[in-house]
Amino acid sequence: MMQPSASFSVTIRVLMQNRSSALGNVLVAAERAGGVCGAIDIVDVSPEETVRDLTVSARDEVHADEVVRSIGDLPDVEVVSVADRTFLMHRGGKIEIAPTVQLKTREDLSMAYTPGVARVCMAIAEEPEDSFDLTLRANTVAVVTDGSAVLGLGDIGPEAALPVMEGKAALFKVFGGVDAFPICLDVHDTDSIVDAVTAIAPTFGGINLEDIAAPHCFEIEARLRKRLAVPVFHDDQHGTAVVVMAALINALKVVDKKLEDLKIVVSGLGAAGIACARMLLATGVANLVGFDSKGLVRRGRPDLSPEKAWFAGISEPPRGSETLEEGLRDADVFLGLSSAGVLDAGALDVMAERPVVFAMANPVPEVLPELARGRVAVMATGRSDYPNQINNVLCFPGIFKGALRCRARDINEDMKMAAAEAIASVIPEEELGPDYIIPSVFDTRVAPAIADAVVEAAVASGVTRTTAGSTPGARESAPTVA
Amino acid sequence: MMQPSASFSVTIRVLMQNRSSALGNVLVAAERAGGVCGAIDIVDVSPEETVRDLTVSARDEVHADEVVRSIGDLPDVEVVSVADRTFLMHRGGKIEIAPTVQLKTREDLSMAYTPGVARVCMAIAEEPEDSFDLTLRANTVAVVTDGSAVLGLGDIGPEAALPVMEGKAALFKVFGGVDAFPICLDVHDTDSIVDAVTAIAPTFGGINLEDIAAPHCFEIEARLRKRLAVPVFHDDQHGTAVVVMAALINALKVVDKKLEDLKIVVSGLGAAGIACARMLLATGVANLVGFDSKGLVRRGRPDLSPEKAWFAGISEPPRGSETLEEGLRDADVFLGLSSAGVLDAGALDVMAERPVVFAMANPVPEVLPELARGRVAVMATGRSDYPNQINNVLCFPGIFKGALRCRARDINEDMKMAAAEAIASVIPEEELGPDYIIPSVFDTRVAPAIADAVVEAAVASGVTRTTAGSTPGARESAPTVA
Repeated sequence: MMQPSASFSVTIRVLMQNRSSALGNVLVAAERAGGVCGAIDIVDVSPEETVRDLTVSARDEVHADEVVRSIGDLPDVEVVSVADRTFLMHRGGKIEIAPTVQLKTREDLSMAYTPGVARVCMAIAEEPEDSFDLTLRANTVAVVTDGSAVLGLGDIGPEAALPVMEGKAALFKVFGGVDAFPICLDVHDTDSIVDAVTAIAPTFGGINLEDIAAPHCFEIEARLRKRLAVPVFHDDQHGTAVVVMAALINALKVVDKKLEDLKIVVSGLGAAGIACARMLLATGVANLVGFDSKGLVRRGRPDLSPEKAWFAGISEPPRGSETLEEGLRDADVFLGLSSAGVLDAGALDVMAERPVVFAMANPVPEVLPELARGRVAVMATGRSDYPNQINNVLCFPGIFKGALRCRARDINEDMKMAAAEAIASVIPEEELGPDYIIPSVFDTRVAPAIADAVVEAAVASGVTRTTAGSTPGARESAPTVA
Repeated sequence: MMQPSASFSVTIRVLMQNRSSALGNVLVAAERAGGVCGAIDIVDVSPEETVRDLTVSARDEVHADEVVRSIGDLPDVEVVSVADRTFLMHRGGKIEIAPTVQLKTREDLSMAYTPGVARVCMAIAEEPEDSFDLTLRANTVAVVTDGSAVLGLGDIGPEAALPVMEGKAALFKVFGGVDAFPICLDVHDTDSIVDAVTAIAPTFGGINLEDIAAPHCFEIEARLRKRLAVPVFHDDQHGTAVVVMAALINALKVVDKKLEDLKIVVSGLGAAGIACARMLLATGVANLVGFDSKGLVRRGRPDLSPEKAWFAGISEPPRGSETLEEGLRDADVFLGLSSAGVLDAGALDVMAERPVVFAMANPVPEVLPELARGRVAVMATGRSDYPNQINNVLCFPGIFKGALRCRARDINEDMKMAAAEAIASVIPEEELGPDYIIPSVFDTRVAPAIADAVVEAAVASGVTRTTAGSTPGARESAPTVA
């Protein structure tokens, strides 16, 4: 059964008669109903009555209603109102646009807006690359979706996808100092999405594609990368691959194995699975076996998308690998990017010695860590309530921070590999262990480390543009003026 | 000759030997060259030398170079660097994206992002209108351009338009508390612009079209208003018309005339001129005569756009009105939305008694106020260095603030008229005078007054949506929790 969590917490406003143990009775009622009490604030006090706000975590909405009812059933207690804390947090949005320049005097206006702005416009008209220096483009990415594959919720449409894209924009800023703006598209075929993103590209220094369904996400990304001179990065693919690779690099140190010796079984060949396979192949992994919801992905299977057909072409599963359980025989690594519970814990026993299991289905993993315990050497999931959380937020703020800093035209394979190695390297070797192969999402060392590594890789691979020094703002070295 | 202004100011870093009157000599050199000295800051001091930053306003870039040269020619003085303050202000952009929620703990993340965000997404998937309550859509507009008619600079393209759109976004926030994000489109035909704006609409609560060339701006706006259920407002048209109307309302109080009695001559029938004519007609003005760069706009002229043909149809110029000068005979009001110096001051003498002249060409008006002095009763321009500045910034922050607050589906004629009357009403009648018919752009009373009036007009005309109270965040009345 799910545990009560903040994501289902409510704030209950309660009016109580001032009797001894009135508050105590309310708390007992809440906890007997299975709620977990958090903050308790006083709202109003009179000689006869007290109004308090009680924050209670529940398992789900039905459970929250049960908790509220059991409080309301108490004598001398009235529930004045109930607010869902998650919904309250989202009301009015989670990001705002803030000016970074002062606009208090006519002089300010004459420089930031007309007439002074005309000179800045003309400088960019003469040299459009200067837009990467003289506008928000210097530090701004679009978080673009069509709402077709949002979280595990499926095709819920652009409006319903907005809370996720906004949240992602907030994470970009908090963890990477990158300005990100959500763009939820009300178009759904490949051509229209490519056209819409191309149309809005002049505003942005990079494009983060998000929650676009496979297989059309592959073509959309490929066409946009070709068409635009700014990085286009489908986070569901490459963000996941980078963090998986980082976790794998460190897991292999713990189990003392090498990438090129591994047999890896991938469960789930959607956007993330395919991207992981490509990255693993690029780093020397030779033995990959893959499964999707219909079973083994092998050459000649009639229903394969182009990407799965590519995978089938690079995979050489031995005979007798028809099922996931059979495929796991002698495997060193299981990568789960599929769905809850597809793997029976017992099947882990046929893996090679010191097996590594990344069960990343959300919110419920392919196999639960408590069931895998004792059977695997290293276990990771996508969840924050188990050790070794593999979460894209470890990658996207830092990789774009680096790409924007060096005005990269692309995020290429070298830059992704540099990001993976940077994430892995944040944990000193002596601190590595089965329960600590990947830094916390709150580890502030991660994004700067990635950005530095990504800039270095971008410069080395020749995908940076330089406009610094070409604008009149920096005719020579610019003095530090306010 | 232009006066030195902040929009052409430079910060000059100067290294001086410590002799008596060293700084004095530098200032004298700057001012002899025609510069106007502003802030003087110390950067570094040693026993022998001092480094200072000197801010000097100049007339233009060539003049700024002259000032720098005359300082550099002094003995014992070295110019270390020169920075253009306007360009410095624009470097890295003028707006940023800031989270409005805290993301410091796993609990924060579980509510703002996964897994909690999924519930907010599902609520919007069930009721898309809730996106106006639960996302940034509640307070966010897009400032959209194709870069085809930017300021007076013409078709300079989307990248070069970005500094203006960013500036506008900053003004939206500072003056109206509205979040605005620039979208510069790399598409240029009517169909593609309409498609691109429609594609990105789910993110926004309103669309501010900007600096799109006439005549295709008319069709773009008309089609988008029909297609989208959020307000679409072409500021060059309606923002200008609203502020002109506000200024005219107050000017008529000063000269004691009525709208329905006026003869108005409009010079310039682009986006702004046509919108002013439409608004004037809607308020009862019957006698309008218009001129464009080819002369009188009259029925049957072969080269008219549909909008100018409409104007010709409502205008009945008397015989002998072929030229602007002839057209002005007995006119009560001149509205200039055309170009510098099209009007000889002498021509004003044939206007009716107590004539009103709005010469709004930027940066140089149709007729200069110093030449019109004594010939007109009320004079206004688009400039900040003369009295009565007619500037769109008086309208757009407030009108969108109101439209967003009541979740309007449209900004209609009633709302625009309410905005004009609200701007006019900010100046108490007893303070009105020939040099004070319109509030300052920094008058903080303007935007709230417009917003209140616009909400009232929107409610009365039935274009508001209401979703408040339908979301689980406010099941009953929401307690005030952090």
